[in-house]
Parts: sequence; structure tokens; C-alpha cells
Amino acid sequence: MTLLQYQSILDAHQLIRPYIHRTPLLTSSLLNDLTGSDVHFKCENLQKVGAFKARGASNAIFSLSDSDANKGVVAHSSGNHGAAVAYAARKRGIPAVIVMPDDSLKCKFDAVASYGAEIIKCKPGTASREAAQDIVVAQRGMLPIHPYNNLNVMAGQGTVGLEIIDELSDLDILIMPVGGGGLLAGNTIVAKHHGVKIFGIEPDLANAAFQSRQANEHIKLDKSATVADGLRSSIGDMNYAITKNVVDEFFCVKEKDIIPAQKWFMSRLKQVIEPSCAVPIAWLLTQPEIIRNKKVAVIITGGNADL
Amino acid sequence: MTLLQYQSILDAHQLIRPYIHRTPLLTSSLLNDLTGSDVHFKCENLQKVGAFKARGASNAIFSLSDSDANKGVVAHSSGNHGAAVAYAARKRGIPAVIVMPDDSLKCKFDAVASYGAEIIKCKPGTASREAAQDIVVAQRGMLPIHPYNNLNVMAGQGTVGLEIIDELSDLDILIMPVGGGGLLAGNTIVAKHHGVKIFGIEPDLANAAFQSRQANEHIKLDKSATVADGLRSSIGDMNYAITKNVVDEFFCVKEKDIIPAQKWFMSRLKQVIEPSCAVPIAWLLTQPEIIRNKKVAVIITGGNADL
Repeated sequence: MTLLQYQSILDAHQLIRPYIHRTPLLTSSLLNDLTGSDVHFKCENLQKVGAFKARGASNAIFSLSDSDANKGVVAHSSGNHGAAVAYAARKRGIPAVIVMPDDSLKCKFDAVASYGAEIIKCKPGTASREAAQDIVVAQRGMLPIHPYNNLNVMAGQGTVGLEIIDELSDLDILIMPVGGGGLLAGNTIVAKHHGVKIFGIEPDLANAAFQSRQANEHIKLDKSATVADGLRSSIGDMNYAITKNVVDEFFCVKEKDIIPAQKWFMSRLKQVIEPSCAVPIAWLLTQPEIIRNKKVAVIITGGNADL
Repeated sequence: MTLLQYQSILDAHQLIRPYIHRTPLLTSSLLNDLTGSDVHFKCENLQKVGAFKARGASNAIFSLSDSDANKGVVAHSSGNHGAAVAYAARKRGIPAVIVMPDDSLKCKFDAVASYGAEIIKCKPGTASREAAQDIVVAQRGMLPIHPYNNLNVMAGQGTVGLEIIDELSDLDILIMPVGGGGLLAGNTIVAKHHGVKIFGIEPDLANAAFQSRQANEHIKLDKSATVADGLRSSIGDMNYAITKNVVDEFFCVKEKDIIPAQKWFMSRLKQVIEPSCAVPIAWLLTQPEIIRNKKVAVIITGGNADL
């Protein structure tokens, strides 16, 4: 039996619906001509906090019992997960602490602060971030919300796929970028429930899920230098366990193709996207033969780019 | 009696519906908090050819009799109108010539060429452009499609307002940037039919409509240096005549506020917009007291920015 049930994703959708947008699907006739396929983009760049992470954080925080919630929540993040936890905590009316590396972008600090969360700065690097979070947990009793290795977070992220499949009948393939695998795990459960194929796309420089598939064991990589900063994490333990025999294919894209794909998408679709979501776009543009004559949906994961 | 009838705009909507997108309205809770108002953005950056100009050009070209249409059409443009005429001509299956100054951006040449139009290059400047167009008209009998001083173009542009008012009940004010006044004229007729106020916003460096209102006569300005390149034209003759006693207010924004407003909008709304549409955004951000407690719609005119 899988760790994550389809019913949990349906329940998550009911729970978080008041706090998230139902985001639109966009198409590009030019891209369809180029690829010979029917491609639909799910625009989570238009989601609350500018990223799908609002879904998982909302589900995790609204799933807490009142007594747990009142302890408050803590997360460490230089990016969208921190803003999402701060946002959801404010919606629930509970305190949140976000541990942020001191080299985070000013706009990220501003976003977290705008949702009323307390910010604790730390040195960059996973060890410093986890140490700072551990202190908050130990001294203040707050509950840590992991960005992907958390079943409620995964169930929340899976609601992206629910909305896609609700709108697009006869979908062949669901495509998304892979980092820690929260989005992948939730949407794998949804896709398989509906008989839809699922593809995960990674940068060559951060392809832990692809390498794990090749090796048939869970491989974790050292800190990656990919420009797709949202995908630098290796796939998490539970995320690997849930997806390992179920995802249809993993593909990789060359680092040099990511930023041109981001610019191409912004100039054609008129959507501001962050480099992480350009990874599947780069794949569509460089390997279009794989989706020819297919109806596919691509998750545009977020729009918090440094312009 | 006005030159432009409300019924002509309803007819335009029926005629062009197969060739245009019904674009979405977006909101920003942050902007609503900042301004104390209820602001809706009509995203014509997501329109065919990336700008509302697809509406006017489609209406002008599909309104031609078969015998006129078969002569083909010609327009001079360094920007969106040329792409729009090329697009609509291809949809009607007739030839189009677009006269383009030889310093136009490569992406603009590419866009026009992608719709199958013939491009004739000329020296920059209105005189050269008109001379080159006149030669095409004289030698080849093609029909010129003016970008704004044309009633069918105005009627097409007015369909933006029809869609807005169809979706937003109790709208107080419709706001848009003003260049040649095609968008303004069409939407003035729609707004007044529905008892909605209409505001036109111009850059300080290209404020012919504002100056004309102050002087109570039609003032035309020399070539402007504003960064809002879509608004460098002075309001046209028919456009002035249709709007002069009807538009509620004209406002101007400082040149220095335009690009920051473009960046603000792109980072918050995640929409790629061109500098011309940042003009009303700059006005909202710098003069918010005028719309406090009002329900307003702002036309986002296009997304063909040089990224």
C-alpha cells in the first residue's frame, strides 16, 4: 500500500480551497505547431505567494489539530516554501518562524515579512538552516513544516493535478520539474488514479531522481549549481518511495537550455516564470518528438523571478 | 450624433470572436490593499499577437467586402499594429504588406514575417513610412489600414470594454493608456453606454490628449521620447472628435515612474507587459487616492516587451 492515498488529495482540495486560487490553463498555438502536440500550461505562477507551494503549506497547516497549530510552525527556506508557510500560518492565525539564509534575495525577505512571519537569519547551507530550525523547535515547541518530505504537503501539491484533470479530458501525459519531489509525489498519485502518464524533468546538474531511476536505488547529490534554484534539492526519502516504481519517465535538460527556455516562454506566453519552471519548457523545445500527437499538461511551478 | 455607434461595437464583437481570445481579468490583493480600491486588470497581453490591436485589425479586415479584401491591405508600423494586420489578413486569406522602419526590433520583423506578410523596409519617421505606404497603395491598389483613425479599428478596440463590463457588474471607472486614441474612442462609447466613468492616462512626455482637454482644442505634439513607445502618437482627428467632451478625466504620469511600474506589475502580477501599459499602473501607484473605494478596470494593452 502506498504511503499517500488519492483520497488524501481530494480531502486536501476541499480543505485548502478557500486559501488558494484555481489557476488557469494557457496554450500557445506556436508551441503546438513547433511540437506537433497539444500542450496546456497550468499557471501556478498565478497562485497565492506566486508558486504551487501555497497548496502544500496550506494543507499541512490547516491539517494540524488546534492544540498543535497553537504551538506555531517553523520552516527553513530561501524561497517559496518559506513564503507559503508564512502565508498559510497567517490565514490560520498562528505564529510562524521562517529561518532564512542571510544571502537570500531581499524580495524573499520582504515577501515573508509581508505575511507577518518572524524571520531568523542564519548562515547559508543546509546544516546551518537545520540547526537554526532545531533551536526553534527545541526552545519554543514550534512544529517544523518540511517542504517536501511531508505527506500533507505532498497531498496539497497533488491538487494541481486534480484541477488539470478536471479540466482536460483525455490527457495523455502530465509533465513537471522535479526537485525534492513533493509536487511529483502528489501528482503521481493523481495521474495514476486517472490512467495518465507522468514525466519528471530535471536539470542535468541536479538530476537525483533520474540517477536514482537508472541505479534503481535512492541517490542523493551534493549541492547543485543549477540556475534552477528551486530544483537543487535531491528527491526526498518518502518522495522517492512513493514515486520510484510509478513515474513513467525521467528526462534531463542541459543547463545551457534553461534560461533561453525561460525567456522564450516569457516572450511567447507573457507569463513571468522562475528558472525552475523553465526546465520542462527546455525539454519540450529540445525533445519535442517524445510528445508528438499527445495531449500534455505542464505545471508552471512559480513566478518569483528576480527581474 | 457621434461618429461611432455602440451597435457597431456589438457587431464588431460578433464578427471578430472567432479570431480573438476572450482575455482574463486578474486582481492583486496587495494592490487593492495599497490603493484601498477594487482593481481588475484586463489582460490583453494574452490576446492574439500579444496586444489588443488584434481586435481592431480583425474588425477592419473582416469588415471589408470581398472585392475590397481581395486587393489586399497595407499598414505601416514598427510594433503591434503591423503584426495585428498581418495576423488578421492571414486569417482572412488575403495579402498584406507591412511597411516597417529599418530600425524596428528584430522580434517585430519576425512576428510580422511569421504571419506571412510581405515586409517593406523604410527609413524611420512618419514621413518615410507614409511615403512607402502611399507607393504600395498607388502601385498595387492595396487598402491602407490606419492604426487608430479608422472607425472599424475603433469599434474593434471597443470590444475590450464590452467583455469587461459583461464580467464586472457595478464598475465605477474604466482606465487605459492613451496614444492615438483608437482604444480610447471605442471604449468611451462602451463606458458611456453603461454609465461607467472613463479615464485616459498619458506619459508627461506624450500627453496630447491631456493638453487638448486643457486647451479645449486638438493639439498634436512632435515625436515624443517617452519609453512608452506605443503611446508616442498624438490623439488622431476622429479619435479626438469622438472623445473630446465625453472622457471624464485625463491624467499624466512622470516618465521616471513608468519602468518601475512595469517591473512592479511583472513581479506582482506575473504578467509580461510592455512599457505602454505600465503608464496606468504608474498612475494607480502614485495617485491612488483618486480611485479609493471604487471598482475599477485597467486595460493591460500588450505584452510585447523586449526582455
